[in-house]
Amino acid sequence: MDLTTSDNSTLAAYVTKLVMDELAKYEQPSRKVKVGVSNRHIHLDRTAMDVLFGKDSELRPKKKLGQPGQFAAEETVTLRGSRGELKRVRVLGPLRAQTQVEICVTDGFAVGVKPPVRESGQLEGTPGIEVIGPKGSVVLEEGVIVALRHIHMHTDDAKRFGVKNGQIVKVKVGGDRGGVLDNVVIRVSPKYALEMHIDVDEANGLGIATGDYVEVLDSNCEA
Amino acid sequence: MDLTTSDNSTLAAYVTKLVMDELAKYEQPSRKVKVGVSNRHIHLDRTAMDVLFGKDSELRPKKKLGQPGQFAAEETVTLRGSRGELKRVRVLGPLRAQTQVEICVTDGFAVGVKPPVRESGQLEGTPGIEVIGPKGSVVLEEGVIVALRHIHMHTDDAKRFGVKNGQIVKVKVGGDRGGVLDNVVIRVSPKYALEMHIDVDEANGLGIATGDYVEVLDSNCEA
Repeated sequence: MDLTTSDNSTLAAYVTKLVMDELAKYEQPSRKVKVGVSNRHIHLDRTAMDVLFGKDSELRPKKKLGQPGQFAAEETVTLRGSRGELKRVRVLGPLRAQTQVEICVTDGFAVGVKPPVRESGQLEGTPGIEVIGPKGSVVLEEGVIVALRHIHMHTDDAKRFGVKNGQIVKVKVGGDRGGVLDNVVIRVSPKYALEMHIDVDEANGLGIATGDYVEVLDSNCEA
Repeated sequence: MDLTTSDNSTLAAYVTKLVMDELAKYEQPSRKVKVGVSNRHIHLDRTAMDVLFGKDSELRPKKKLGQPGQFAAEETVTLRGSRGELKRVRVLGPLRAQTQVEICVTDGFAVGVKPPVRESGQLEGTPGIEVIGPKGSVVLEEGVIVALRHIHMHTDDAKRFGVKNGQIVKVKVGGDRGGVLDNVVIRVSPKYALEMHIDVDEANGLGIATGDYVEVLDSNCEA
């Protein structure tokens, strides 16, 4: 390009592009993560599925979830505790190695169960509950948790964010009820999609809805 | 004290006190505040009281609250929205100039009302609800809010914390579900006692119970 013969608008466009390209080198990659709010749900193992919905029955996918291969099933159950029931609790698929119930603290008060905040799968010492299906019911000795908030990341996302599986990060939440959340666990797998999971109490208490974005703070930049 | 003639234990005690007194000069005053979790409740004006509980009826105090002069009354009402009812909703006394309903977001879903997060008394444009008492019912045109989290402070506390009425501060919450909360309003009055008010969603989502302590961050010390 011959700057001496260019008209003003061509020159302006040329300089603008030059400056923008230069600025882009300093731009930080986004640290934003979309939120999915988990309502109360249950994961079933084969044995519980057989009892609740019939021998060799299969879950019927109703809606795909944020994580690849995971789905909300047509099937629902009733949870019965000492103080009451939660009806139409959604079963999530596919089946798992161990039955697990995830409710929020508010649900726990309603049914009379006081589950601890736990990572998925860490069920030792957790309370049980009665699960009622159309074909039968099971009394779980353990398996009720309040899910520890966490961020699913694909391996590529983890590289970009500079974090590892199991790492604890802080997350910035905007809005009226926003702030910074401690103790957010990173879970990395080539099977995961980038998504933060919180429960209904956290969503309502922090003013967050499914589809909102939060920001993972850079632990190297913290005060 | 003659150090040359003191025995070792007297000397040790003397030096310890000297060092502790010196260290005390550097100690920061506590910035801790006790939390009170507000369950759903209603404040009534004279007109609503007359309709719901009878002409010239008076609230009967059942339990003192954290703020001087405030009490939970024996009286309860039912709130009825488009999707359902909340029964045994506690009336707080004394009577106020305007009827105001405070529920959490989870309650709002249950009854079919979507109140905004507001400071107490700021009711313009808020949704209404039907309030049912033993002697009659009123349909409020407005007055349902989700209370904006806030800290009541006596004038002396405000001086100690170095904050003013209406100031917005950040609050540090400990525990599994802790973090830092933005947008906490300070409310100062010689009639107030030091106490932070949050609602049930916030309490459950953040793992806080009545009587727990949080810490007001010093805005001058923030990163």
